[in-house]
Amino acid sequence: MSTNTYFTEYENLEIHELMLKDRPRQAAYFEAILGNKELFKDKVVMDVGAGTGILSAFCAKAGARLVYAIEASNVATKVALDLIQDNGLTNVVKVINSRVEEFVLPTTAEKVDIIVSEWMGFYLLHEGMLDSVLYARDNFLKEDGLLFPSECTIFVAPCSVPSLYDDWNNVDGINMATFASKLRAQKSSKPSVLSVEPKDLLHEGVVFHWMNLLDVTVDELNCIEFKDVVALQKNGNHQGFCIWFEVRFPGDNSVVLSTSPEAPQTHWKQVVLVLPEEICENMEAREPVAFKICMKRSGDDARKYNLEVDQLDPETEEHPVPCPCHMTKCILTEAHLKMMDTS
Amino acid sequence: MSTNTYFTEYENLEIHELMLKDRPRQAAYFEAILGNKELFKDKVVMDVGAGTGILSAFCAKAGARLVYAIEASNVATKVALDLIQDNGLTNVVKVINSRVEEFVLPTTAEKVDIIVSEWMGFYLLHEGMLDSVLYARDNFLKEDGLLFPSECTIFVAPCSVPSLYDDWNNVDGINMATFASKLRAQKSSKPSVLSVEPKDLLHEGVVFHWMNLLDVTVDELNCIEFKDVVALQKNGNHQGFCIWFEVRFPGDNSVVLSTSPEAPQTHWKQVVLVLPEEICENMEAREPVAFKICMKRSGDDARKYNLEVDQLDPETEEHPVPCPCHMTKCILTEAHLKMMDTS
Repeated sequence: MSTNTYFTEYENLEIHELMLKDRPRQAAYFEAILGNKELFKDKVVMDVGAGTGILSAFCAKAGARLVYAIEASNVATKVALDLIQDNGLTNVVKVINSRVEEFVLPTTAEKVDIIVSEWMGFYLLHEGMLDSVLYARDNFLKEDGLLFPSECTIFVAPCSVPSLYDDWNNVDGINMATFASKLRAQKSSKPSVLSVEPKDLLHEGVVFHWMNLLDVTVDELNCIEFKDVVALQKNGNHQGFCIWFEVRFPGDNSVVLSTSPEAPQTHWKQVVLVLPEEICENMEAREPVAFKICMKRSGDDARKYNLEVDQLDPETEEHPVPCPCHMTKCILTEAHLKMMDTS
Repeated sequence: MSTNTYFTEYENLEIHELMLKDRPRQAAYFEAILGNKELFKDKVVMDVGAGTGILSAFCAKAGARLVYAIEASNVATKVALDLIQDNGLTNVVKVINSRVEEFVLPTTAEKVDIIVSEWMGFYLLHEGMLDSVLYARDNFLKEDGLLFPSECTIFVAPCSVPSLYDDWNNVDGINMATFASKLRAQKSSKPSVLSVEPKDLLHEGVVFHWMNLLDVTVDELNCIEFKDVVALQKNGNHQGFCIWFEVRFPGDNSVVLSTSPEAPQTHWKQVVLVLPEEICENMEAREPVAFKICMKRSGDDARKYNLEVDQLDPETEEHPVPCPCHMTKCILTEAHLKMMDTS
């Protein structure tokens, strides 16, 4: 996708409607900003990708002295300007219709105390908008400035995917397994964005990647790899890997926005890497799943990532210590550790 | 949309996924067919627009002797053939990859006893697929044959549309009314498909149009007009007209598939003709709303309709008799009728 197409998509107000109606998203930013007024009082804030301007308005209401609401799409002039005016915030919020990479601070102006942004995409990094936030951080944020959000974590867990597998074995008495297999084939070119029910997770999830946004670099976003062996926590058909993320905001009133299957549903839902039928397997609790997962920025389009998962052989991969899996070496290690613990 | 594009869209299996996961839709066809086995036993059936073939499979399971599963898109060969085979129904169901208008019955073959089809689109007629069902009826159905479904009704009711109006007056303390107005403008070019909550209906609904599919003609589908005066049944902001439909199936076990706001939600949801802000009005129960509504096939694309609603003046329009509205003439008429009733 060209950069221009990317911003044009955000001219479609229905995308903003979707985001604004995402209650967990809205509530998290509302709480993080208006629940930490002491951090915002008299501060200078930059809102990167301000969209309709609602987060900038939150910052103004939290007491900010000046907010730069930077928005590259025409939503800046079509919507945000009016929103700021209608809410009597023109003295505080300056709407700027520009890419943040093309923005220049007035020569006499100080750098900003806080950068606020809602940049997250599917599987966290889709859309590649974090690059722009890091650019803003490197160019406009004071030495000891804050980022809202400040940390993010991506999780992964083996899961069942009944909506693409088992649900189709009996549709009102009709076997539609072949349809399901073709449906999966059609969907296999991209990661599936879907709602995973907690009951379909075979493991609570492990941390695939963690980032402190204050020090991560754009280069580090190009390729994220992770390898692990997890022992399943329940019986089930291992049909995919479920990916979700959470972001954490600064402040004493520390807010976390989670897109976990256990959390209230957001418009990000979850992303599932669905396994091909040949390697799906009915597994039992404590069986080990060894895998390598990789999120790599697409060569064609820096806003997209290729997500790949490889199943590895749990016999030859190194397990964590201790490992609750049922393999003899892990049972022995655990017994040994317990013995040392009690001795 | 060209006819070819129309069928190509149905090659996307995710559309079939959406329809198959629509439980009220599935349950209605299941009940209508398998709950009326005596109608299907040893009969010849034609399934117009068979898609994945699931309704044809229902008919076979209900005892049909022969089912022509006619499907113009490549889903016929890609999915339906396998489905019929996987369910051991190849002796009964013949999958035919053809437009029904190009299909020719074998010269020795009898006409069909029953035509089954799921042809309904948004506001019932979107997609214009009923034309093909009527072609099949006129060319392939026996004199006393049955149609599944056999009747359909379109309803209309004045309603509030908070998701496009009031909800935006206060979004976490921010007034987004201007955004909402631009969002409505963006959406105004086409009818809004959305879920209307029963509480937002200002009236239970009146019959906008009723059709017996055994005798309706394609010409009658080109333009449907309706004029009425309804007395609101509750107070509220009149911001739109909500349209929904229901279809009725033959048989002693008579099944109705309803897309009313009161019924469990289907993928058709409801369609709302949203009024421009200037004519929205806070109204009280028993206030009359006079309107003319018109569904007219688009000149550019026979599969689409233009939906238009005009508000009329309840002072000059003729009211039904009796009319529960609060206007003096209707109150007097009602009193008069009551008096005659008791005299």
